[in-house]
Amino acid sequence: MPLTLSDTDADFEARFAALLAAKREVSEDVEQAVRAILADVRTRGDAALIDYTARFDRLTLSPTTIRIGEAEFEAAEAAVDPRTREALVLARDRIEAHHRRQKPADDFYTDPLGVELGSRWSAIDAAGLYVPGGTASYPSSVLMNAVPAKVAGVGRVVIVVPAPDGRLNPLVLVAARLAGVDEVYRIGGAQAVGALAYGTETVRPVAKIVGPGNAYVAAAKRQVFGTVGIDMIAGPSEVLVIADDENDPDWLASDLLAQAEHDTAAQAILITDSATLAEAVEAAVVRQLATLPRGETAAASWRDYGAIITVGDLARAIPLANRIAAEHLELALADPAPFLSGIRHAGAIFVGRHTPEVIGDYVGGSNHVLPTARSARFSSGLSVLDFMKRTSVLKLGPEQLRALGPAAIALAEAEGLGAHARSVAIRLNL
Amino acid sequence: MPLTLSDTDADFEARFAALLAAKREVSEDVEQAVRAILADVRTRGDAALIDYTARFDRLTLSPTTIRIGEAEFEAAEAAVDPRTREALVLARDRIEAHHRRQKPADDFYTDPLGVELGSRWSAIDAAGLYVPGGTASYPSSVLMNAVPAKVAGVGRVVIVVPAPDGRLNPLVLVAARLAGVDEVYRIGGAQAVGALAYGTETVRPVAKIVGPGNAYVAAAKRQVFGTVGIDMIAGPSEVLVIADDENDPDWLASDLLAQAEHDTAAQAILITDSATLAEAVEAAVVRQLATLPRGETAAASWRDYGAIITVGDLARAIPLANRIAAEHLELALADPAPFLSGIRHAGAIFVGRHTPEVIGDYVGGSNHVLPTARSARFSSGLSVLDFMKRTSVLKLGPEQLRALGPAAIALAEAEGLGAHARSVAIRLNL
Repeated sequence: MPLTLSDTDADFEARFAALLAAKREVSEDVEQAVRAILADVRTRGDAALIDYTARFDRLTLSPTTIRIGEAEFEAAEAAVDPRTREALVLARDRIEAHHRRQKPADDFYTDPLGVELGSRWSAIDAAGLYVPGGTASYPSSVLMNAVPAKVAGVGRVVIVVPAPDGRLNPLVLVAARLAGVDEVYRIGGAQAVGALAYGTETVRPVAKIVGPGNAYVAAAKRQVFGTVGIDMIAGPSEVLVIADDENDPDWLASDLLAQAEHDTAAQAILITDSATLAEAVEAAVVRQLATLPRGETAAASWRDYGAIITVGDLARAIPLANRIAAEHLELALADPAPFLSGIRHAGAIFVGRHTPEVIGDYVGGSNHVLPTARSARFSSGLSVLDFMKRTSVLKLGPEQLRALGPAAIALAEAEGLGAHARSVAIRLNL
Repeated sequence: MPLTLSDTDADFEARFAALLAAKREVSEDVEQAVRAILADVRTRGDAALIDYTARFDRLTLSPTTIRIGEAEFEAAEAAVDPRTREALVLARDRIEAHHRRQKPADDFYTDPLGVELGSRWSAIDAAGLYVPGGTASYPSSVLMNAVPAKVAGVGRVVIVVPAPDGRLNPLVLVAARLAGVDEVYRIGGAQAVGALAYGTETVRPVAKIVGPGNAYVAAAKRQVFGTVGIDMIAGPSEVLVIADDENDPDWLASDLLAQAEHDTAAQAILITDSATLAEAVEAAVVRQLATLPRGETAAASWRDYGAIITVGDLARAIPLANRIAAEHLELALADPAPFLSGIRHAGAIFVGRHTPEVIGDYVGGSNHVLPTARSARFSSGLSVLDFMKRTSVLKLGPEQLRALGPAAIALAEAEGLGAHARSVAIRLNL
């Protein structure tokens, strides 16, 4: 049974606050193990990669088979259902078109004093994308991470993906090709993160590592941060559905379950002003669970973290949604406009009854890598900006230095920084 | 003596690589101490703040004196040299004008299928700015952090600043006022970071914490990350000066020392094609050190981390500069254009002989919070974007869902996600 709350309950605020504060992840203590693996990869390079891959993935590699070669890409292409490949092409094209609009413009201008100022954007040199192995080896995530990197202009995009017992998802290889990925290595875990950060004989290092992974991968990313950049550390997925009473309960139930099936720690929340709809959705969830391939996972998520909140007035959902700051927010409403303008904190908003969140997972065009665990209050989904950086440019001539120099000297002196003051004064003969 | 290298040395590559790899910071092991302080502030709120402030800052506070009141701001205004205040106003205005240009535009459009897509930017609700106490309590840093937050539209900007033995820099209070800061609290250390992240009876929590601090502050920021956003963890400051032989050695020496005086772990590097200039700069550094108020700090930095690199051809400086990826880069050159286009990795570039880096510290208008320790390869200086986040918006009608739905179903099925497939199929009666 999911949590059920009503904003007329006397203890509503306390129970809602508890829902927000609930930790959904067990943090495994893998820091020490990861530290040792990273140090070993840094020291021994390929030899360490080969050892860990034998141990963790039960796969024997040699320096020449760490990287995936042309023949395997071709075999993958041949193995893939043409309809699925076509869907990947559609997704790739739509992601690319949407992300092209995110490319920032340089800004160079001369101010009224004649000072030339600039902000110049450039791509990072190389990006590494971690792709999990096994059932979570999603080709859609390959596209969502690699396409923005290529749109940004990253010259070298590299994938690492473990092949437990030698098995690789051919769709991952096909998606990598479609996204323009330059190199793919069959390594995973902390050892793969170490290879991307420090480089080995076979794997040249990258400047930034992105992509989801298990506790070892997340810890490794945190530990190499500084040597390279990393993306956010994503938590379990979430959806918040705000619904009026005109919805088909089965549609909403399938949306809630689409989050729940990801992970037993995923979270699906419904807010509605209709007690009748709330009950009908709950019943529909139970019905649909019975025929779901990943029903056990979804049932555990719904039981442990699901919630149905009924409110007297649907407008009351707006401040609640801002406090939840959901990764995904569906507005299944006849009139979504006031909600769209009132809700400030959400990773992505899906508007109207015909925009299930799943469209955004695959073919909407926007990114499916989004802030989880209420971090939409302060962070954004993955974008082209994550693969670029900005350099400031400043140029003064003698006249501009005369105009601005005295103020710089005054501030340097006030801060007790004598060489700062001198570096300006010496140029002005002061 | 700084390190001296020439690209004609047989061991140049090895020694240059060693220069890049050198760690300049001693990492203090304060994790456990910080964890205890944060937990205590989270549990006991103001009472914990008061206890730690008594212990670490030798200052007795009560709940009513944690926050700085109107009378103190007025006393600070009265205590400040009008010329310095005027310089702060100039700096504030220039920072504001430059950062206004960084405000991202929302992007809403309808694609050829009729799908409505949007990227909406919004400010975070509240930002906390850590300002160090003592000699590093810089009013310029208050402006550089708080002005972009206010330009972003952050409703509530809060400063925490320790007042060891009760002493506060009045310029910090004046700068806070000029930047439009809403609240200032006289607390510091890990306890102040905990108050900003978790809130206490007196300090309401914020969504993101920015600003420099010592090892305790940095560790506290890392530990609260996730509960709130944080900015980068800044390392010691750096400058790289690329100079032709037409420079005044005293100008360049003062620029190198302006970095070196920040911190014994700061780094100043000169690259030139003139051995004569290299020697003259080295002599000028020694001469200027003798009369510098912070001469001991600067001398230690120059001795331990300074470097002079002579190259046969100045064009050779471009790949070296890209590997150094300096926080600050000065191009003291007659023809900086090819360097400006060739150097891709730098926090900020200062062009020509009349743009000492110090102008960028105070009154250039661009931000002085910049990526250190080679992180300009993958990250940017502080900007308005750091105080905003982007929400994706997607809207399909029945027709668009019919067009895109089948591809989403194909991909969901290929990824083994049955509820994903159903959430689309159920709306299409498939």
